[in-house]
Amino acid sequence: MSQSGEDHNEVANWPSNHPPGDWARFAKSDAAAGFEIGPDFKRFSQHDDAFNRAWWDEAIMSPAVRTFYEAQLNPKPRKAEGFGQWDYALINSAWSVARDYAARGRPDGRREGFVDAFQSFLPQSETKAELPSTEETTARIKQVAKFLGAGKVGITEYDERWVYTHSAEVNGSRDERPNELAGNFKSVIVLAHEMDYELVKSYPSATAAAATGREYSREAAIVSSLASFIRALGYEAVGSSNDSAITIPYAIKAGMGEYGRNQMVITEEFGPRVRFSKVFTELELVYDAPKKFGARQTCDVCTKCADACPPKALPHGPPQAVGPNRSNITGVTKWSADCEKCFTYWTKINVDCAICMRVCPYNKDYSKWKWRAMRRLLGTPLRGLMLWLDDRMGFGKRRKPLEWWRRSMTE
Amino acid sequence: MSQSGEDHNEVANWPSNHPPGDWARFAKSDAAAGFEIGPDFKRFSQHDDAFNRAWWDEAIMSPAVRTFYEAQLNPKPRKAEGFGQWDYALINSAWSVARDYAARGRPDGRREGFVDAFQSFLPQSETKAELPSTEETTARIKQVAKFLGAGKVGITEYDERWVYTHSAEVNGSRDERPNELAGNFKSVIVLAHEMDYELVKSYPSATAAAATGREYSREAAIVSSLASFIRALGYEAVGSSNDSAITIPYAIKAGMGEYGRNQMVITEEFGPRVRFSKVFTELELVYDAPKKFGARQTCDVCTKCADACPPKALPHGPPQAVGPNRSNITGVTKWSADCEKCFTYWTKINVDCAICMRVCPYNKDYSKWKWRAMRRLLGTPLRGLMLWLDDRMGFGKRRKPLEWWRRSMTE
Repeated sequence: MSQSGEDHNEVANWPSNHPPGDWARFAKSDAAAGFEIGPDFKRFSQHDDAFNRAWWDEAIMSPAVRTFYEAQLNPKPRKAEGFGQWDYALINSAWSVARDYAARGRPDGRREGFVDAFQSFLPQSETKAELPSTEETTARIKQVAKFLGAGKVGITEYDERWVYTHSAEVNGSRDERPNELAGNFKSVIVLAHEMDYELVKSYPSATAAAATGREYSREAAIVSSLASFIRALGYEAVGSSNDSAITIPYAIKAGMGEYGRNQMVITEEFGPRVRFSKVFTELELVYDAPKKFGARQTCDVCTKCADACPPKALPHGPPQAVGPNRSNITGVTKWSADCEKCFTYWTKINVDCAICMRVCPYNKDYSKWKWRAMRRLLGTPLRGLMLWLDDRMGFGKRRKPLEWWRRSMTE
Repeated sequence: MSQSGEDHNEVANWPSNHPPGDWARFAKSDAAAGFEIGPDFKRFSQHDDAFNRAWWDEAIMSPAVRTFYEAQLNPKPRKAEGFGQWDYALINSAWSVARDYAARGRPDGRREGFVDAFQSFLPQSETKAELPSTEETTARIKQVAKFLGAGKVGITEYDERWVYTHSAEVNGSRDERPNELAGNFKSVIVLAHEMDYELVKSYPSATAAAATGREYSREAAIVSSLASFIRALGYEAVGSSNDSAITIPYAIKAGMGEYGRNQMVITEEFGPRVRFSKVFTELELVYDAPKKFGARQTCDVCTKCADACPPKALPHGPPQAVGPNRSNITGVTKWSADCEKCFTYWTKINVDCAICMRVCPYNKDYSKWKWRAMRRLLGTPLRGLMLWLDDRMGFGKRRKPLEWWRRSMTE
């Protein structure tokens, strides 16, 4: 499952209490972003995502689910390389800020960043700050987001289609409950958080999965700080990670990149090795345009992620209008994973897997000019040659987790 | 006041219940670090630092103190450039993770990061992880600290002389109370957190002070995560920011840099533009050696910080064995600020000041080769010429805070 753990919840039927005109206003930007949305869609309930279904749906439930979730505080290290005590210490410490934020709302039945939006440390000022031009306000907000630690920032229009109809209780039942997200939102600010290149090489392992944990922790810190900033200016703002709404459609419209076969947004800067967070705000801002650099066409002919997926959860064929199960949306034509297979594999190895990120030909260190050149060629008819070269050069192969620990002695 | 807000609390008499031999064991490393400690010192109580004295000591108390502290949640923006609503929104959002961590212990009378150590998200494992050689264990710990976001890492021996005898209550009285720091500590891991170069140019202002806030927030996140990592390995570890102990002596012994006239550790990488956090641990690790690159000799002849200090809180002369008031330590020969004057100036402008950091000739962007070359020459007899050049080139001049906001339109 991809950057926001929720790409399998892509779209949903437009609610019947909304006039059709409301949906029609997105037709042009949907086309520009390459969204193919049918007339039959309805908004998604987070209750149906695999992480929540694992608590209530026999299709996914198993004793391994509890062990998987408990490994956050009480891991069961094993002899296998990459799954020892050092490795679980690394993943769990990397996650600890995100877990701290998630835990603090627990007495109130909230789980920030996972099924509830982040509380803001700062109250919304009663005085609304004077705003410069929309262009300068936008530039300032983006500069602040980067100062706070975002790797990339994009902005798009608020679109209620991607907001979850329901959230899930944080108790064991994960019963459906109302989504608390509320506000007079006009814009969605999407932040990208780059994952560590060296660690991602060793997926699947607890070592590598620390790369995911660190960005969840950073998301929690950065997005709640950015929402605090806007509230201190006197405007509504809510920071969000996996909670409240599906992030991927906003990310694509905000110019973060293209949707890939591996269910991830492929960014130009970091490939698929990135996570996203978002801030909903009433501020009117300048919107970014979708960004295309040939990734979609690469995914059309490349099946490395689907080939490498141990539980065969990723599709080999073209995008489909209907997904494998209730964790997918019907009504959007796209590549959809079988999240039952995917998450069950995670619980089997007792840590999250991201082989589909590791093997992606866009998983490169683009600070190096030669990989930037290769990325460019991947966007041309030389694509097939580039994919062949990618294999020949040994990219995508799993590096032994112990090598990450050992490099500490040589770096 | 410097990176940890506590450099004015430098040393203290060795407690009478400790055998003299305990102190003697530091004689050699004290000499290597350039520490000049007299026979009359006693450990410092945090109750006596300016931040706490501001609540109970008439020498510092004033209505402006309350306004200063309240500005965290309820600022009073004014017309002056750099002190408007945008600027206070920036500083307060940058601080928000640190404030969140400080606030969470409030119901228990704790204030993490300021007068109490950080709670660790992860419990200490009952199983002690197998450790490779001390060298490799050290290298791994340093690599994890950097992965979590530390800019630089150094390690030194645990030294109880720098541990506060007492902490302060978090209520308005700030009564003295026992320091809760406890553990079978052997090592102190010091982490450096680089402050933003562009923002520091505009001290004093609420805009610039966001550079301090961001690093406090990162300290809270990173140091509590690193302590969590070590605890998950099964070993005692406590993460700390301004609480529990004076950081600067550990930082110097851990090879972070040299002590400067401006009360800050001058690092080779970031000059004085850096903050420190620390982890106390029972792990036995390889200790770093103090790092000297000529900064002390520069401070001997350079008085830019003292000249630029509006309340004249910094000394022009050589290091002294006795400081200006009870917020200083007697028994250590060093440069000492008058923290009453310093903090009173902060409350007067209603934001923390760091002009002494801005004007330091080591406040440069050392990613550029020419400033690295200049740093090298500052460590030679060409020092005087370099200091003259520094002035001629206009370094240290305050940049208007609005320029930071405006650069968002051009970057």
